[in-house]
Amino acid sequence: MKVIEVDLGKRSYPIYIGDSILADKELIDKQITSHQVLVVTNETIAPLYLKSIVNNLAGLDYDVLVLPDGESYKSLDCFNQIISRLMEKKFNRTCMLIALGGGVIGDLTGFVAACYQRGVKFIQIPTTLLAQVDSSVGGKTAVNHPLGKNMIGAFYQPSAVLADTSVLSSLPDREFSAGLAEVIKYGLIRDREFYEWLENNIDLLIQRDNKALIYTIERSCINKAEVVAQDERESGVRATLNLGHTFGHAIETGLSYKHWLHGEAVGCGMLMAADLSMRLGLLEQEQVDRIKRLLVRAKLPIKIHKDIKLKQMLENMKVDKKSRDGILYLILLSDIGQATITADYTEQALTETINHFLE
Amino acid sequence: MKVIEVDLGKRSYPIYIGDSILADKELIDKQITSHQVLVVTNETIAPLYLKSIVNNLAGLDYDVLVLPDGESYKSLDCFNQIISRLMEKKFNRTCMLIALGGGVIGDLTGFVAACYQRGVKFIQIPTTLLAQVDSSVGGKTAVNHPLGKNMIGAFYQPSAVLADTSVLSSLPDREFSAGLAEVIKYGLIRDREFYEWLENNIDLLIQRDNKALIYTIERSCINKAEVVAQDERESGVRATLNLGHTFGHAIETGLSYKHWLHGEAVGCGMLMAADLSMRLGLLEQEQVDRIKRLLVRAKLPIKIHKDIKLKQMLENMKVDKKSRDGILYLILLSDIGQATITADYTEQALTETINHFLE
Repeated sequence: MKVIEVDLGKRSYPIYIGDSILADKELIDKQITSHQVLVVTNETIAPLYLKSIVNNLAGLDYDVLVLPDGESYKSLDCFNQIISRLMEKKFNRTCMLIALGGGVIGDLTGFVAACYQRGVKFIQIPTTLLAQVDSSVGGKTAVNHPLGKNMIGAFYQPSAVLADTSVLSSLPDREFSAGLAEVIKYGLIRDREFYEWLENNIDLLIQRDNKALIYTIERSCINKAEVVAQDERESGVRATLNLGHTFGHAIETGLSYKHWLHGEAVGCGMLMAADLSMRLGLLEQEQVDRIKRLLVRAKLPIKIHKDIKLKQMLENMKVDKKSRDGILYLILLSDIGQATITADYTEQALTETINHFLE
Repeated sequence: MKVIEVDLGKRSYPIYIGDSILADKELIDKQITSHQVLVVTNETIAPLYLKSIVNNLAGLDYDVLVLPDGESYKSLDCFNQIISRLMEKKFNRTCMLIALGGGVIGDLTGFVAACYQRGVKFIQIPTTLLAQVDSSVGGKTAVNHPLGKNMIGAFYQPSAVLADTSVLSSLPDREFSAGLAEVIKYGLIRDREFYEWLENNIDLLIQRDNKALIYTIERSCINKAEVVAQDERESGVRATLNLGHTFGHAIETGLSYKHWLHGEAVGCGMLMAADLSMRLGLLEQEQVDRIKRLLVRAKLPIKIHKDIKLKQMLENMKVDKKSRDGILYLILLSDIGQATITADYTEQALTETINHFLE
């Protein structure tokens, strides 16, 4: 088992990574530090892994809330539903929440933990690759608003993250690849060595080789933990973690969050960011091609979904959270392993990039 | 004009106190540091003071949201309504909210500011005595849940508080007295000298003498700011600010938040806390009588509302946020000017106190 510490002073916490975490009764018991526990999960995950958590809760005042599966449940309605359950159970501010699921369950449950009685403890048990390498680490919690994703939320850190690689065996191929997009991102923005390791090991990873998986999750979490420790509330360097996300969100919004997974949109978005970087003279064409090859091997899309038009892309990009006083800052690449935040690009270059990726 | 700094490192902010703050265009202009501004207020306050704020917003992309007046609008529904307005206006994370009103508007708007895009700036312009001396300072934001008050919220600091004493002239007498309860509280828990000043000046204060008002608000804010600077997230000493609140909340819940104002319930609750302190040998009977005399002069109730029964009081007290693992901690007094947090009391003494205050 690997342990990574996210260093945030009083809000520091460990990430445990291994292939039998959920079976490690002693480890789980040690994390549960309250007599009042609510497990939040969804209908897909509950039949698979809920039992191994509940087994650890005997003797406690606990309850389980099982939501339907899907992004549309990352809503203020479900937030209120969880809060109501906590109130009905008369749980006080020493209670603890456990988020057992992917990014939707983690973000939603984390936001409830941030707000219930102005903050209670919670544990993340991510069950997708994307959640294990990205959304469960770093304290970004949120729900969606009908007019925008993650628009209602808080920075709120969990007290521990438990990433069990064995749960990834049940993950559909497309979801696995979607998680790889965020993994590749860490290499691109700040870890060239890891990027090269990925180029050499992507086939092993696609086969879900356990050793490769543990290394991938560990290295991803180390990168994320370092960035978050430097800039918890995203006033600077943390924004680089959004490489590909402004393009990606615009695609997702254009598709009304259907057809494509978040990681797929981010994968395509990263290649678009690389392409724009090339047009601005920051990156070589050969480096863009190299990124494209890795994304293809990771089974990620490299063209924008056919339902999307240029005008729509441009408009959707403008409402991004990274827009400041009407200026849209983008995360671009000045090398493989080196990100830059800039508003120094032309509308023409941006248009050329989008056109290049339209089907 | 008096300026008090709330010392919270990066989250520090000033409280401006004076009798012509809202007319001070230069001061207000200096506080508004965004091009996108949403003013949130209510139907009672809007006709009186909205204009003087809006006059400062010419040339900016601003909007105003006027809610109905009342505690029932401190809800997740109104929270969502404000968020929706921000989304419709396409306001980004550099926008700013202005809360113009009493505690309901301040707590609700502050909670929206805490959550919109994971946190945007906001200014508190409190228009009641209670909000000026208590709720607008210290960063406690929240909305109510149908099963409990302030159950959904965040610790989130404003970027400035503007307390204009001239707006208090339009405040109904009962609301003014309710604010005095929180003022007297600061004297009781940590500022004996201020308490004695209040004993000597309460009649002047009741007449809303401007000099006495400014001194009262200043001294109250200094006390609150010192406590909050020591313990922002209420893991220790900040809990003493809740003197009388556990009793008070139980009364409010028993009355379904009708008939009595929050400050009235707190006033009666403080006397109950003093009475229980006396029964436990912490305080002299003479000191309890002295507190009672000041509350009477401040026109605050000193008996529990007649609709409330003993059993109901005991049950309502148990669901308090200060309950930890089933043990209810109470804020009591060991002297005038000296609070103590304790679970070291008997059910019998508590019952005697409640019985003593039942009509």
